[in-house]
Amino acid sequence: MSQCIENEERINIDGSSLNVNNKIDLFSDLFTKQSSHDTLLILNQRITLPFVLFQELWETKPIRICADGAANRLYEYLILNGEDNITKYVPDYIVGDLDSIKDDIVDFYLKMKVVILKQNTQYATDFKKCLLMIVYNAYHPGVLKEKRYEDNYKIDPVDGLIKLNDEIDDHKKIGIINVIAIGAIGGRFDQSINAITELYNNSGDKSKITLRFLTDTDIIMLIPGNGTMICYDSQFRDMVIGNCGLLPMGEPIKLIETHGLKWDVCNWDSSIPSGIVSSNNRFSGIDRCYIDSNCDFVMNIEYFPNELVKYMNLA
Amino acid sequence: MSQCIENEERINIDGSSLNVNNKIDLFSDLFTKQSSHDTLLILNQRITLPFVLFQELWETKPIRICADGAANRLYEYLILNGEDNITKYVPDYIVGDLDSIKDDIVDFYLKMKVVILKQNTQYATDFKKCLLMIVYNAYHPGVLKEKRYEDNYKIDPVDGLIKLNDEIDDHKKIGIINVIAIGAIGGRFDQSINAITELYNNSGDKSKITLRFLTDTDIIMLIPGNGTMICYDSQFRDMVIGNCGLLPMGEPIKLIETHGLKWDVCNWDSSIPSGIVSSNNRFSGIDRCYIDSNCDFVMNIEYFPNELVKYMNLA
Repeated sequence: MSQCIENEERINIDGSSLNVNNKIDLFSDLFTKQSSHDTLLILNQRITLPFVLFQELWETKPIRICADGAANRLYEYLILNGEDNITKYVPDYIVGDLDSIKDDIVDFYLKMKVVILKQNTQYATDFKKCLLMIVYNAYHPGVLKEKRYEDNYKIDPVDGLIKLNDEIDDHKKIGIINVIAIGAIGGRFDQSINAITELYNNSGDKSKITLRFLTDTDIIMLIPGNGTMICYDSQFRDMVIGNCGLLPMGEPIKLIETHGLKWDVCNWDSSIPSGIVSSNNRFSGIDRCYIDSNCDFVMNIEYFPNELVKYMNLA
Repeated sequence: MSQCIENEERINIDGSSLNVNNKIDLFSDLFTKQSSHDTLLILNQRITLPFVLFQELWETKPIRICADGAANRLYEYLILNGEDNITKYVPDYIVGDLDSIKDDIVDFYLKMKVVILKQNTQYATDFKKCLLMIVYNAYHPGVLKEKRYEDNYKIDPVDGLIKLNDEIDDHKKIGIINVIAIGAIGGRFDQSINAITELYNNSGDKSKITLRFLTDTDIIMLIPGNGTMICYDSQFRDMVIGNCGLLPMGEPIKLIETHGLKWDVCNWDSSIPSGIVSSNNRFSGIDRCYIDSNCDFVMNIEYFPNELVKYMNLA
């Protein structure tokens, strides 16, 4: 029988009897360095994060990629926060059809030895092209830096990256690449929804990437079905985290059981067409929240950027 | 067999052989007055529309409602565009749990004879409460203006509007109420997705409301399945409209046939989890576009606010 119960603001969650198949550590998975392939992906929207938070993201993600016009946005944002930043925060790659990046930005970043790779195909978004670049880089780090912009690094300018990714030798184990994308949500609505499709594309056991989005208000990620424990320390939850939503974008889901939400549910059918969606919810678990669903779904977790900065300084 | 064909930028669409069950006139359905119940709904986000466009929307929608803290946003926006605007653009209703509206804004709008109705239930969003108000107003126009804020207009402050709407006598025919909401998309992501659920909630033959969203970049609406013709004049399309996306939010859909997109599809399965979504598309039909799908889906149509203003002055 379907059930929804309202909990106290903070409750203790005993995970010992729960079937946990996936574990997410909200702070360290996102905001600390996990591997040398971890990437900050910057998409083409105005950057409005607090600069100290941007700096932290930059420092903890060894690889930084701009999607086409995002290079303009990065440059503008850096100038705004002090002119000498433009030579301090230089991305590794700029990838896309290059119809948005300005000529003087191309010139500047070529001087700074950035790999600026053209991929013209209109059957992939600049977002997808960047994800291909991220995977290629993990298997072939630094290889393109030795080649030349003038002949597009010897990569077919239409869709060479797709072919190169098809050829990747999977036996070379590189582990999961953690990617945080900024500028994925907001702006034109079909582009935001396209970004959500990338959360699904980059999920499952075969995925080489774990993709998460950071906006000015939310952390957005895919929660795998079949038992996920979201962990955080209690101070992080109290300081940094606000509301959350369990968003069945793409398909109706069944929330089998949740433990550690303000409004926990059990055997609960949720879908956008039915209007039954758990939004305006929040974590009540002191240091963890368990969610078991019959399939993957999108979750947004509100966070307070300035509090996150304070927490990072404390941590 | 599934098919996708690329059309010329402008093609002629002969609608005579198409099965049209729904018709949307993109300009007049949204931007001209259709009935005395038509409503501008303002949700709690910073208003950034060009002021002349806001004025046009205000003039063509005889009823104006703010959801709780949206009243603060309206006031700030009006001041920003000239102090005397605050007494020119006075909403009819402010509805919600009233935990966001500032005290001085309550005082100001009470002086201006605005109906400020408290509805405390946490099992409905302020958005939903406003939609209930819109329907109630259409059946009982002006009734609340004669009652008093001090006793909450004799409406149960928990969820009185829900009960009043249940009691509405449907035999009084009022026609469809066209609602344009601003501030529905953007900001916290679960609130945007909650807004999308309202598109579905307010659809179908029994719905009293046709709901559309306007952002700074997009018109967002539900496209009914089973044959919809979207009409526009060619000048409007050329000047005002950019790209569009056919977004199967909530459930997988089948696009049975489309006529008048740059990339028309036929017998095409689309879903967010599969990653197969028609984004970055656009109208190629000179003055119409036909879409037949097996169920309703969300569509965003990029528009250029300043060009819309120019078009309105021309029109």
